Amino acid sequence: MAFEKKQLPKKSESLSDWYNRVVQLAELADYGPAKGTMIFRPYGYRIWELLTEAMDKEIKEAGVENAYFPLFIPESFLKKEKQHVEGFAPELAVVTIGGGEELTEKLIVRPTSETIMYDAYSKWVHSWRDLPILINQWNNVVRWEKRTYLFLRTSEFLWQEGHTAHATHKEALEMQSWAMGMYAKTYRELFALPGLVGRKSEKEKFAGAVATLTYESLMPEGKALQSCTSHDLGQNFSKVFEIKFQDKEGKLQYAWQTSWGFSTRSVGGLLMAHGDDAGLVIPPRLAPIQTVILPVTSDTKLVEKSREMAKQLTDMGVRVKVDDREDESIGFRINKWELKGVPVRIELGKRELENGELTVVRRDTGEKQVISHAKLGPTVKELLVTIQSDLLAKQEKFLTENTRETGNYEEFKKIMEEKRGFLKAYWCEDAECEAKIKEETKATVRCLPEDAKFSQGKCVKCGKEARNKWVFALAY
Amino acid sequence: MAFEKKQLPKKSESLSDWYNRVVQLAELADYGPAKGTMIFRPYGYRIWELLTEAMDKEIKEAGVENAYFPLFIPESFLKKEKQHVEGFAPELAVVTIGGGEELTEKLIVRPTSETIMYDAYSKWVHSWRDLPILINQWNNVVRWEKRTYLFLRTSEFLWQEGHTAHATHKEALEMQSWAMGMYAKTYRELFALPGLVGRKSEKEKFAGAVATLTYESLMPEGKALQSCTSHDLGQNFSKVFEIKFQDKEGKLQYAWQTSWGFSTRSVGGLLMAHGDDAGLVIPPRLAPIQTVILPVTSDTKLVEKSREMAKQLTDMGVRVKVDDREDESIGFRINKWELKGVPVRIELGKRELENGELTVVRRDTGEKQVISHAKLGPTVKELLVTIQSDLLAKQEKFLTENTRETGNYEEFKKIMEEKRGFLKAYWCEDAECEAKIKEETKATVRCLPEDAKFSQGKCVKCGKEARNKWVFALAY
Repeated sequence: MAFEKKQLPKKSESLSDWYNRVVQLAELADYGPAKGTMIFRPYGYRIWELLTEAMDKEIKEAGVENAYFPLFIPESFLKKEKQHVEGFAPELAVVTIGGGEELTEKLIVRPTSETIMYDAYSKWVHSWRDLPILINQWNNVVRWEKRTYLFLRTSEFLWQEGHTAHATHKEALEMQSWAMGMYAKTYRELFALPGLVGRKSEKEKFAGAVATLTYESLMPEGKALQSCTSHDLGQNFSKVFEIKFQDKEGKLQYAWQTSWGFSTRSVGGLLMAHGDDAGLVIPPRLAPIQTVILPVTSDTKLVEKSREMAKQLTDMGVRVKVDDREDESIGFRINKWELKGVPVRIELGKRELENGELTVVRRDTGEKQVISHAKLGPTVKELLVTIQSDLLAKQEKFLTENTRETGNYEEFKKIMEEKRGFLKAYWCEDAECEAKIKEETKATVRCLPEDAKFSQGKCVKCGKEARNKWVFALAY
Repeated sequence: MAFEKKQLPKKSESLSDWYNRVVQLAELADYGPAKGTMIFRPYGYRIWELLTEAMDKEIKEAGVENAYFPLFIPESFLKKEKQHVEGFAPELAVVTIGGGEELTEKLIVRPTSETIMYDAYSKWVHSWRDLPILINQWNNVVRWEKRTYLFLRTSEFLWQEGHTAHATHKEALEMQSWAMGMYAKTYRELFALPGLVGRKSEKEKFAGAVATLTYESLMPEGKALQSCTSHDLGQNFSKVFEIKFQDKEGKLQYAWQTSWGFSTRSVGGLLMAHGDDAGLVIPPRLAPIQTVILPVTSDTKLVEKSREMAKQLTDMGVRVKVDDREDESIGFRINKWELKGVPVRIELGKRELENGELTVVRRDTGEKQVISHAKLGPTVKELLVTIQSDLLAKQEKFLTENTRETGNYEEFKKIMEEKRGFLKAYWCEDAECEAKIKEETKATVRCLPEDAKFSQGKCVKCGKEARNKWVFALAY
């Protein structure tokens, strides 16, 4: 695999060409043989693994336990909640043959697990003492897609899905909000991706939910990416699946539920947001390799010193790799690791070795410094922290600069054509208005931000009374 | 959920009744709605999680990287390796509808991933520099079953599958052997389950392999459980999928491959081997809860002291839980945690608290000791180590006592009827003999143990020349 820069389209010129190419050249992912599927190669999967390790810890600390429910859901289960089945019907993969025989009841490959989990919950819950049920699973789900957009749109994706049942609506709402808070923290601190937290419109909420919270981040071409969601399911599913419990007073009640999910789609957002014309820029906290060490030649002394430095960094908890491939020039190797987005690069030449020095290069800014060997550890540690926070700051600036407001529909259309980004505007919350705006501008209602203050104005489209400024954007 | 002992059939009287009941009563697992499926409840899934954490570390240390390949395999892929498809055809789940449309090519829900992975490998490998490829994945696979035996026989199970490609057969054989060594170590050290490592017969080897290594453990009723396998695939798949590379001399060669897998079936073996009439006995290293602390009453002082002790043990790295449910008597709670197999139980009564003492009980032997509070930490730590090694010693004794040898077919039949266990006997390695033995005794060839010395004798069945003593047993 060659890593010549000329193979890579410029990010600044064509985002999607750049993205498709860089993801493959960097060996993050590849297309699977069946339509809509993808292969997570080790370098790409490792990003997901680092994320899951961190998030799993948060989930467990909140008292949520992991479990695993079957991949196959009987068709009749999915049909029990009307809105739910309507929402998912067009996206299903269906098993009709098992063990060489036509099945009497078709099996759905789970697109999400509400129905199969809540059927089990109904058997496990009898009294208030059996609540809350706090269960999460890390698994694969399938929602049919004809065309793969690596990480961002795939028939099969990996995710976690949390599913809880509570004695009161208040507790359930707290859980829903905890999940979104945990996601937002993860996006900011690990992905270095700021975003808007808010409530989805009635049309865009999860099929079967009372209300959906979303985290919307903004991609370089000004389009929104829905990054994860957290749902208040109310008693919609508990009534259908009969999750009933006797409360402390002995009365029979239906449980209050939440579900919340975070998927490998997020990795697509990470890659798309931070890269540049030379390739990927992976934030240190999710970088499979945080520092690459390149001996300029394959001279034994350089290679030995490189390994020694690698050991030192590894012992400090840095994820490090030495690349001393003899058949690749130093220039080739520099390009390769720039393309792969490793945050810190160390170059060690003969002269530097003699002087007890080495060169440290930041991937994000290209900034170079020559330091003494003694400063290696502290310099790398500090740089990794700095790069992580600088990447977040850069994205925050981008988000602020690309969040606009208007009360005029002509301006609305113009912004969506020319600048895109997040656009705040009064909206009457009528589905017809929502549909017309989408038809005319391609923009969809992304969310009502959680920090939006109650106010009064006129709908940007129809001029009717509106109580809230919603956020609109083009979206993936 | 009640935990009265009378609900539990005696293990000593009916192993499978005991097993089915205890797995559900202990809240380890439940039946899924579709045939052959199961739900891993949090307490059961945690055992698998503890195992995967430990094994994933070993796998990574060996330089193998995790990746993720698609769930759906085009039917044509599976058909490429003739033996492979013949072996798996009767067990397949097939997706025929996707996104509301009949598919032009059926998709197989992976029963194992050789074919889809090796198709990708063929695109990634060009030169000897691209080898070895060392990839593992943790995922779900489906092999159709009509009747669920919780953990032990399920249509969908969880596992890891390692898939490697090498430049030489020697390297591949080393990898195959490394994997089995890692499995055997895991079984002994974590599962406290000794077993036989050996080679499978031609009939019993993996469909498409040159040779299969297996780890066979022995369950209480004297039946063998195939616990995991590691395959030398030779060039069988690389020739079919065209995994070719230019060697150092510039010659085109086919890669040498291995695959190896370890599944949730192992958890079934763990549970079945170590329990007793009172319920499960989970070896400390895989116990979700290693120590349970029971205040005898819900007296505030007892509960407070219990929590204080729990914190102390948690800080020492012990997985601990306080059970102070007011609505359950101390007797009820003792039964519950015995049934759930927690290795160490601590009871704290009012008198004990006043005397600065507490009672520590071993789940495996029932042994009780009263110790001072000051000794809590060291006592628990030591007990967990002792219990782990005592459980292994007990199983080793069982294995030794139930491994027999015979040269006489009448005796062979008698042993298989009355005592079962592992039975060593000369076998001519003829498939017809193998089939007859199975028909007449239900015993199958389990393996040729790796430590078997080359010798000469007469086949126990047909009397023809035989070069090796193989191990026979009834099996799950």
